[in-house]
Amino acid sequence: MVAVAVLQAFGAKGPLWLRRGPWAQLPARFCSGDLAGAGRRESDPRPTSARQLDGIRNIVLSNPKKRNALSLAMLKSLRSDILHDAESNDLKVIIISAEGPVFSSGHDLKELTEEQGRDYHAEVFQTCAEVMMLIRNHPVPVIAMVNGLATAAGCQLVASCDIAVASDKSSFTTPGVNIGLFCSTPGVALARAVPKKVALEMLFTGEPISAQEALLHGLLSKVVPEAQLQEETMRIARKIASLSRPVVSLGKATFYKQLPQDLGTAYYLTSQAMVDNLALRDGQEGITSFLQKRKPIWSHEPA
Amino acid sequence: MVAVAVLQAFGAKGPLWLRRGPWAQLPARFCSGDLAGAGRRESDPRPTSARQLDGIRNIVLSNPKKRNALSLAMLKSLRSDILHDAESNDLKVIIISAEGPVFSSGHDLKELTEEQGRDYHAEVFQTCAEVMMLIRNHPVPVIAMVNGLATAAGCQLVASCDIAVASDKSSFTTPGVNIGLFCSTPGVALARAVPKKVALEMLFTGEPISAQEALLHGLLSKVVPEAQLQEETMRIARKIASLSRPVVSLGKATFYKQLPQDLGTAYYLTSQAMVDNLALRDGQEGITSFLQKRKPIWSHEPA
Amino acid sequence: MVAVAVLQAFGAKGPLWLRRGPWAQLPARFCSGDLAGAGRRESDPRPTSARQLDGIRNIVLSNPKKRNALSLAMLKSLRSDILHDAESNDLKVIIISAEGPVFSSGHDLKELTEEQGRDYHAEVFQTCAEVMMLIRNHPVPVIAMVNGLATAAGCQLVASCDIAVASDKSSFTTPGVNIGLFCSTPGVALARAVPKKVALEMLFTGEPISAQEALLHGLLSKVVPEAQLQEETMRIARKIASLSRPVVSLGKATFYKQLPQDLGTAYYLTSQAMVDNLALRDGQEGITSFLQKRKPIWSHEPA
Repeated sequence: MVAVAVLQAFGAKGPLWLRRGPWAQLPARFCSGDLAGAGRRESDPRPTSARQLDGIRNIVLSNPKKRNALSLAMLKSLRSDILHDAESNDLKVIIISAEGPVFSSGHDLKELTEEQGRDYHAEVFQTCAEVMMLIRNHPVPVIAMVNGLATAAGCQLVASCDIAVASDKSSFTTPGVNIGLFCSTPGVALARAVPKKVALEMLFTGEPISAQEALLHGLLSKVVPEAQLQEETMRIARKIASLSRPVVSLGKATFYKQLPQDLGTAYYLTSQAMVDNLALRDGQEGITSFLQKRKPIWSHEPA
Repeated sequence: MVAVAVLQAFGAKGPLWLRRGPWAQLPARFCSGDLAGAGRRESDPRPTSARQLDGIRNIVLSNPKKRNALSLAMLKSLRSDILHDAESNDLKVIIISAEGPVFSSGHDLKELTEEQGRDYHAEVFQTCAEVMMLIRNHPVPVIAMVNGLATAAGCQLVASCDIAVASDKSSFTTPGVNIGLFCSTPGVALARAVPKKVALEMLFTGEPISAQEALLHGLLSKVVPEAQLQEETMRIARKIASLSRPVVSLGKATFYKQLPQDLGTAYYLTSQAMVDNLALRDGQEGITSFLQKRKPIWSHEPA
Repeated sequence: MVAVAVLQAFGAKGPLWLRRGPWAQLPARFCSGDLAGAGRRESDPRPTSARQLDGIRNIVLSNPKKRNALSLAMLKSLRSDILHDAESNDLKVIIISAEGPVFSSGHDLKELTEEQGRDYHAEVFQTCAEVMMLIRNHPVPVIAMVNGLATAAGCQLVASCDIAVASDKSSFTTPGVNIGLFCSTPGVALARAVPKKVALEMLFTGEPISAQEALLHGLLSKVVPEAQLQEETMRIARKIASLSRPVVSLGKATFYKQLPQDLGTAYYLTSQAMVDNLALRDGQEGITSFLQKRKPIWSHEPA
């Protein structure tokens, strides 16, 4: 029964909007007031907070008392913050970070008891998968900034981002087997980031790997001392924010589109994308400014 | 002609039982006596030995005089030891190791001469592929414990296990080109464990890589000094043996099922598996015991 | 419009000859004189040079003044040198290197201006993709020998070779985003060589990685001090040149054929290839000589 529910929700391969957009309508509760200021109501604090400056949106998991568990409320709030004004040219890059010593402890186990029932369980995992796929399908790069422990679906979130920067005190684990719940959904993202044997040892033993091991195996893009984490992450974000948004956006979409294809199809798709990129206003501005030895002035126009 | 023979043996994508089970009938010669004791008949020594204790089955390649070559007899004996009581709840994890300084030297070249003929050659490679796929399709994790040289199909065996622990004196090579037989079947497992360029240099030059390089590139899960090899491997095995078998089994099957899928399909499959996992008796016991701050008591019941 | 042009040129998945051969007719301008001697005409210098000795063909990008940009002329010259006598038994391995401090700076931006037009752009990317796929589909291994900076399509060229050896002063970058042209085609080869997160950080930030980082992540097979680059590359090339050409050729083709397949299909294809390999004259010579404890004498005969 729940299988049917999940199936209907996903369609054959997930809902169309997840695969190609357009972006879903934003929930009413998300407003720019939330982005600009502290913006939490006492009665119903949002489990994430977000603010945006100079094209860089900082989304923060803000429930450190609950180790930033990815409860259904947290997942929906995160989804909302990621989706907000996704198509606006003012947004160039997203950073996801967390308050407190735990980046995220994964699902909220209180939501996975027998009392909650299969349909509720299905909604949790489906919403989680939506958020992960949303990161990949989003028009701007998404950076995870990790300072501490990332567990289970929290590790999945790191693996799902386009770029991941972590402090050297961070660690990563998929310990579901210890409590009788194999980390199968985190395994999807993990297996696409690190070698198979690394993923399987993590999944079968539930033991953590260090930030350095995570870097070595491809789970992270960069590891820095804790004191430099913010600075290094912001440096990368500012670099991306200085680029042409439609160029980066076309590039990101094309990268993930070609990734699962055979070589011939991949080159066919990307050769087309290169020609389309050159036809963009910013494509020609880039080439022209380079040949004229001046800085480019991006229009960020989508054509 | 032999192509047809191989094709028929495999079906379109390999025999059904290899892909989904149920497990094949055990050959009559395999009996628990073999597992429990030394159990070799003088007249017909088995090229592998196996014993099982506390859920951990140790299978040992036991023909060190022939450098543990994967002769057809060795492959069949290995297959038999892997398949034995595969569905029993008493079995939680398998360790494959070897007697002597060579883990395995690969195929027995005396079986690959012109005199043996194409049909015999085909049987050798097909049986070898069956063993490798059996490891992946087996309900419990399979760990390679390597202390020495693993060559050609021996290297393939290491690459095919779910987890691989090796001593720092071990090394790995696919030297078939030196004797005019490119390691194409070992290349299947190798290419799915290490980066393409690493696999190709090994295959084209036949030169060995060290245990440390193998670890760096994803062929191994862990490298330890020789003196700690047994202890570290048993530590991992005991950890896995302490978990719920149906949870681990569902997790392993789901991992390999989602691996080749696109992201949407992978999340659909695994979200379903998570819901199914929670519905297992041990799934709910795990969550409940965690919330009650006590140790879980696994039933190991399959539903 | 250009999309249609590209589509027609590639067919559904690229032209047939790129996927399976037979090799295209060589252009008339390519002749063994070019290979054997300096062979450049003053009036029309070829942007690549090539010579062949003892089965090893050295192709050199020879336009250091233009940082060995992969102009359309350079790509065609490279293609011609790779294709020349591809089916000859005298050819065992190809090395691609470059004159000057830059291995290659990627596409010639003067060819990508608005004035050149979309059809011309399409021809550039399509020819580039052809060269990259040609390397994979070529019957002998292709080694990149890198001593310096490899940028954009230059980095793609390194990633596309079967083996890549670099000096420790080399570096690798895909900086297209800086000039408004995302490195989508280089990303195809990059994403198939290094972990996704490494590829994306390179593509999104345009920042270089060192030779050591490239080795760590799988883009290179080996890194050596500059003084040993030639020696080490030649050592690998001589090793390959000492092997049976049809065995290596069957092995290379089989490797890339099985790579994108599921495990069952991959083992079916490679088991067949092993049997076919054994039926080669050099297959049996290899086994026989090994059992007779003598050096093999290769016939290099294709059957």
